Amino acid sequence: MNTERLAAFSDGVIAIIITIMVLDLKVPHSAEWAALAEVGPVLLSYALSFVFVAIYWNNHHHLLHTVTRVNGAILWANNNLLFWLSLVPFVTAWIGETHFARQPTILYGFALLMPALSYFLLTKVIMRGGADDSKLAQAIGHDFKGKISIVFYVVGIVAGFFLPAISYGCYLLVAIIWLVPDPRIERSLKED
Amino acid sequence: MNTERLAAFSDGVIAIIITIMVLDLKVPHSAEWAALAEVGPVLLSYALSFVFVAIYWNNHHHLLHTVTRVNGAILWANNNLLFWLSLVPFVTAWIGETHFARQPTILYGFALLMPALSYFLLTKVIMRGGADDSKLAQAIGHDFKGKISIVFYVVGIVAGFFLPAISYGCYLLVAIIWLVPDPRIERSLKED
Amino acid sequence: MNTERLAAFSDGVIAIIITIMVLDLKVPHSAEWAALAEVGPVLLSYALSFVFVAIYWNNHHHLLHTVTRVNGAILWANNNLLFWLSLVPFVTAWIGETHFARQPTILYGFALLMPALSYFLLTKVIMRGGADDSKLAQAIGHDFKGKISIVFYVVGIVAGFFLPAISYGCYLLVAIIWLVPDPRIERSLKED
Amino acid sequence: MNTERLAAFSDGVIAIIITIMVLDLKVPHSAEWAALAEVGPVLLSYALSFVFVAIYWNNHHHLLHTVTRVNGAILWANNNLLFWLSLVPFVTAWIGETHFARQPTILYGFALLMPALSYFLLTKVIMRGGADDSKLAQAIGHDFKGKISIVFYVVGIVAGFFLPAISYGCYLLVAIIWLVPDPRIERSLKED
Repeated sequence: MNTERLAAFSDGVIAIIITIMVLDLKVPHSAEWAALAEVGPVLLSYALSFVFVAIYWNNHHHLLHTVTRVNGAILWANNNLLFWLSLVPFVTAWIGETHFARQPTILYGFALLMPALSYFLLTKVIMRGGADDSKLAQAIGHDFKGKISIVFYVVGIVAGFFLPAISYGCYLLVAIIWLVPDPRIERSLKED
Repeated sequence: MNTERLAAFSDGVIAIIITIMVLDLKVPHSAEWAALAEVGPVLLSYALSFVFVAIYWNNHHHLLHTVTRVNGAILWANNNLLFWLSLVPFVTAWIGETHFARQPTILYGFALLMPALSYFLLTKVIMRGGADDSKLAQAIGHDFKGKISIVFYVVGIVAGFFLPAISYGCYLLVAIIWLVPDPRIERSLKED
Repeated sequence: MNTERLAAFSDGVIAIIITIMVLDLKVPHSAEWAALAEVGPVLLSYALSFVFVAIYWNNHHHLLHTVTRVNGAILWANNNLLFWLSLVPFVTAWIGETHFARQPTILYGFALLMPALSYFLLTKVIMRGGADDSKLAQAIGHDFKGKISIVFYVVGIVAGFFLPAISYGCYLLVAIIWLVPDPRIERSLKED
Repeated sequence: MNTERLAAFSDGVIAIIITIMVLDLKVPHSAEWAALAEVGPVLLSYALSFVFVAIYWNNHHHLLHTVTRVNGAILWANNNLLFWLSLVPFVTAWIGETHFARQPTILYGFALLMPALSYFLLTKVIMRGGADDSKLAQAIGHDFKGKISIVFYVVGIVAGFFLPAISYGCYLLVAIIWLVPDPRIERSLKED
């Protein structure tokens, strides 16, 4: 199996994940602005998760670009990532419908942490699958962004037991960190 | 990231957006024509939005064709456009279910205005990302269609506070303007 | 816009249409066989429509293969076909839920007739867009299959007012006619 | 029609099948952990089916790689496989919502058996379509995995009438067997 194929399938799944979240925006049966206002929190949670999934799509694309040959371990590490990403719409709807209540907020952090850990695992598997002089090994380096994201998610989850607002602060910080595409991989690829 | 990849992901998201709108056509539980008639307004709103999303797919495709190298700004300007387009099914269902009532009609205009502004922004970002002798800069020119569309949407939104019928007149005008693929870009591409 | 792109977008939309029909199979809340039996008619209608949409995908693919250059007319004739195909899931669910009652059966015939007419229109538009020595013009010939399908659909629709069973007989006949890929186009392409 | 096209359409359908299963995870309206716990069985059934569909995607990809020319028989044997796979989300939701009750467990086995038989049929059709010295014929050999899977599914279905737990044991065994990509096909392809 070539990288192209794996990327196309992943892109398909991620495109569906990012789009079906909008199905959780229940259409108000009344035509009043007040009825629309009730959709507000679900819309907000959708916008937040849209950004997270878009970040994954972007970084995932960069990552797969460094793979030269797909093996079974890479395939299943990738499927594992897609599985956890596919749960994001469910948790997104839960925080939206419960107006960002405590338990859903904690689960949301968990639902973001699991893809982060899966992405980290995928990176490791790709590094082992490629040669030790692979572009990726050089490019990722100490992978500061990946590690700090995991720390922020864990802090956000713990904070959720006390004050959900702090959790969302942590989650937003991760989004901001990743919004900029990783210059290390880009630089490494450009040197070819 | 190459343009091909960005176009494929965008196409996937737009294909899903245009198709899931049909899920809002609720199947009548009775087998009578009268029960079917109730679906009429939702079907009409679906047909209208199908045309709008199809226009975006078409023009978006032409636009991405002029991009030679995707940078982070283009990527996120494109994600921004996809986000606003993904809200179209929700608002489409709202105008259908409320039989084109005032507030939903105004919001529908807004839901069409935001992708228009996002598309305009994407055009600007692509122009800055490419060289000043880029085909696009030449091709778009003063971008009369894009600007007049935004004017029509704003007029339609304002008119919605008084008479929704005028709003739909404005929205339809925009559809008619764009139904013809942009000859300026096509001409410019053909000169290659 | 090249043919490849148009085919990819169409494939995406058709893949979604064929798959979301399964969402109309409502999961029984009881674990009894009796509860499952109620799903029977919807499953049957799904299987029928799956075959029809798969036939369109197959023939549509063959047809686009003969296009050398996409113009605006081809683009919108294709969008028109996709629009009518996208209504098939809705009507499929209606015949299933009403156990193949009279009115839904008539509408089902109409929902199959419209893509057939749209496909016919697309063929004509492609013939005009290509050169008069185009492979397609030669390949399609008198297009017996396309014309007889339209006749069968119309007969099926009219029969629906008297006896729905005859309608399904007509619809099935069309499916059988098309299940064999068109030898004329294949032969013509092979002669290259 | 080339293999690439058939693979792309199949990938699209499989990507949608694997993702829409998540729509059956109904969002709890309460923000309590207890409300979340009710989703547990549906989540478990989703994870199980995710693995099965991912295995099919993987093996299907390997299989299509051995096809040199798509004919009508291969096309419809492939559509037949996609049809049965598309029913997996429905049965998955049924076992989840009924907490793995007897009848749904039996049907789940049937819903896994049918794609297995369809996959077997597709293999046969591809072998007939290709030359007798085809890579596939050599690669598949006695197809031990495929045959033992069918045996396990049948045992699982029969066991379901007595003790559903045994059924899931059988189904899991099949998943484990297939999780490793088929070394026979890979070896054969590598020898090129």
